[in-house]
Amino acid sequence: MRATLMYKAGDVRIENVPDAQLVEPTDAIIRVSLACICGSDLWPYKLLEPQPAGRRMGHEAIGIVEAVGSKVGLLRRDDLVVMPFAYSDGTCDFCHEGLHTACAHGGYFGVGGVDGAQAEAIRVPLADGTLYKLPVREDDALISSLLTLSDVMGTGHHAAVTARVSRGKKVAVIGDGAVGLCGVIAAKRLGAEQIIILGRHPDRITLARDFGATDVVKERGEAAGEQVRKLTGGTGVHSILECVGTDEAIRTSIQIARPGGAIGRVGVPHYETIPASQPAFYRNISLGGGPAPVRAYIETLLPDILEGRIQPGRVFDRTIGLDEVPDGYRAMNEREALKIMVKP
Amino acid sequence: MRATLMYKAGDVRIENVPDAQLVEPTDAIIRVSLACICGSDLWPYKLLEPQPAGRRMGHEAIGIVEAVGSKVGLLRRDDLVVMPFAYSDGTCDFCHEGLHTACAHGGYFGVGGVDGAQAEAIRVPLADGTLYKLPVREDDALISSLLTLSDVMGTGHHAAVTARVSRGKKVAVIGDGAVGLCGVIAAKRLGAEQIIILGRHPDRITLARDFGATDVVKERGEAAGEQVRKLTGGTGVHSILECVGTDEAIRTSIQIARPGGAIGRVGVPHYETIPASQPAFYRNISLGGGPAPVRAYIETLLPDILEGRIQPGRVFDRTIGLDEVPDGYRAMNEREALKIMVKP
Repeated sequence: MRATLMYKAGDVRIENVPDAQLVEPTDAIIRVSLACICGSDLWPYKLLEPQPAGRRMGHEAIGIVEAVGSKVGLLRRDDLVVMPFAYSDGTCDFCHEGLHTACAHGGYFGVGGVDGAQAEAIRVPLADGTLYKLPVREDDALISSLLTLSDVMGTGHHAAVTARVSRGKKVAVIGDGAVGLCGVIAAKRLGAEQIIILGRHPDRITLARDFGATDVVKERGEAAGEQVRKLTGGTGVHSILECVGTDEAIRTSIQIARPGGAIGRVGVPHYETIPASQPAFYRNISLGGGPAPVRAYIETLLPDILEGRIQPGRVFDRTIGLDEVPDGYRAMNEREALKIMVKP
Repeated sequence: MRATLMYKAGDVRIENVPDAQLVEPTDAIIRVSLACICGSDLWPYKLLEPQPAGRRMGHEAIGIVEAVGSKVGLLRRDDLVVMPFAYSDGTCDFCHEGLHTACAHGGYFGVGGVDGAQAEAIRVPLADGTLYKLPVREDDALISSLLTLSDVMGTGHHAAVTARVSRGKKVAVIGDGAVGLCGVIAAKRLGAEQIIILGRHPDRITLARDFGATDVVKERGEAAGEQVRKLTGGTGVHSILECVGTDEAIRTSIQIARPGGAIGRVGVPHYETIPASQPAFYRNISLGGGPAPVRAYIETLLPDILEGRIQPGRVFDRTIGLDEVPDGYRAMNEREALKIMVKP
C-alpha cells in the first residue's frame, strides 16, 4: 500500500510500504476514506531532524473497517468510523474521566511504532476504545465536518472548555488556522457574547466571521493587547483560546486576559517557559489545556454536526489525492491552503 | 501612635508616626486589636532594598472602628471588624464576581500610600467594601481563628478552590507554613480523600495531621515527586496547593500533578518562569491562583469557625506586643515561630 513518510524538514514522500496488518488482538485495520494534513504536521515539516527510516505521517481519518482482531467486540467489517488523533482503551480511569489523551495504555498515531493516517490503510490499536462508529454513509454530505471530529473541532472545543467559555463571556481566539476557526465555532456554541479573532489572513477572517467571530484584531504582540483591551472596555477577555503554540501567542494570551480569566492552550508549545508572575499571578489568570481528548468530545459535538448547527467541515479548502500530499504540505506551510483533505 | 516600618532587608523598627486619620470620606480608622506577621512579610525581610522613608508593614488585622468618613454607611464606631489584606469597594464588577483582589478601585495595605496594620491604628480605604463586621466580641475565644480570615485561612482556601479540590480528590499541599496548614484545613473541608503535606518541620507536620493531612513527604525536588507518586498509586494528585512561591515549589507542583490535575498557587512567586511544555501541557495540567479574594471568602468560612468545625487560629504559636515585632520577624524568618499574633 502507499503511505506518507517524512524524512526531514521539508522532505515528504509517498512510498510503497507493507500493507497494514493486525498485530494485537485489540487492533483494527481501517481503509482510509479521508485523512487530513494538520497544522501540527507543519512543525516537523519546518523542524524535523533527518529520520533515516522516515516518519509515518497523519493522525486524522475517517475510514472503513476492513479487519478486526479477535478481541475487538464493538466494531465490524464495513463500519464507517472516525479515528481520533490519539488511541485509547476507553476503560481506564482517565478514559472514564474523559481525558482519553492520558489513557493508561494509549498513545499517538505517527509515533512509537504506530503508523500514520495519510495512507491507504492504517492499523488502529485499541480499536474498541479508539474508533467511533458513525451513523452515516461514506458519501454523506456532512462527511467533511465529521472528519474534523478526528482533531480540529475537538481541539477547538477543548481550548474553549479549558478556557472556561460559557454564556455571556468575552472570548479571544488566537490563531486563524483550522483549530482557531473551530475554536470560534466552539466559543459560539458555548454561548460566548463576544468573540475576538486574532488573525490576519482575509479568507480565514471571513470564515471566522461566518462562524461567529464578532471582532477581528490583526495586530500582534503589545499592539494586539491594546486592541483587545479597547474592544472590551479596558478589562480584557474572560477566555483565551490559544491555538498557535508560539511564545508570542502565549504571552499575548496572558496580556489580554481579564483578571480571573482563563487561557485554554491547544497549540503544541514551541516555547520553553511561561512568564510566572506579572500579570498572570497578580490577575489570578489560570492556564489550562493540552492535547484534546477528542474521543470524549465526539458524543458532545456529533449531534450539532448531524443536525447542521455547526459546520466545521468548512475549514477544508482543498481536497487532494495521496500523490499530491507532499505539495499539500508545501501549500499549507506557505498558508496557500487552510486545511487540506486527503482522499487516498 | 506607634507603627512598624521596614527600612531594608532585616531592618524592622517600631516608631512614632502621625496618628491614623480619615483622608477620604469612604475611609474608616480602626484601632488594631490584633495584627499578624505574615509569611509574605518575610520576602521583604530577606530582600528589601533600602527605603529612605521606611515601608509600613502589616496587612492582617482585627480591630475596632474608631471613626468613619461621611460616606461610610455600613459601619459604626465600636464595631469589631476583620480587615482583609486587600481593600476593595465591594461594588465593581470584579467584587460582584468575588474577585475582590482585582477591584477596580482597590489595592493592598502597606503599599501606595496606604499604611500597614502592625500599628496601633490604621486608615482603611473603602471601608464599607473592605471591612467585615464580626458577630462576636473582642475577647471571644474564637478571635484568633477569626483573625486568619484576614489572610491565611482565606488564602489556603483560595489555593484549594483554584486547585479544584472536591470530594474524594487526592491533594498535595506544598509548604508547611501558616498558609499551607490552612490549605490542609481547606482541602479537608472541601472533602479531599487524601491530603499529602510536603514539609519537614516536626511541629508543623503534627498540626497538619491534626488538621487532616493523611500523609507526609519530607523530601524535596525529584525525590518529593517520587514519594508522591508512590503514595498515589503512581499517578500523582488531582490538586496541588502551592503555598511557598519558589521555583522548586512550582516545579514540584507540576511534577506531582495527575494528568488533568490542577495547581492552585498562592505563594507570592519568586520565580520568573514556569516550564511550559513537558509535563504541564502533555498532561493537561492547569495552573491557577493568585492573590486570594479573602473578602469574598469570609462569608463562606465564617460559619465553620463560629461553629467550631475548623480552627485555623491554631496556626498562631506566639503572641507579642508591638515592641517585640522586630524580634518577631527574626523568629519567623528563622522558623523559630510559625505564625505570630501581634497585640499592639
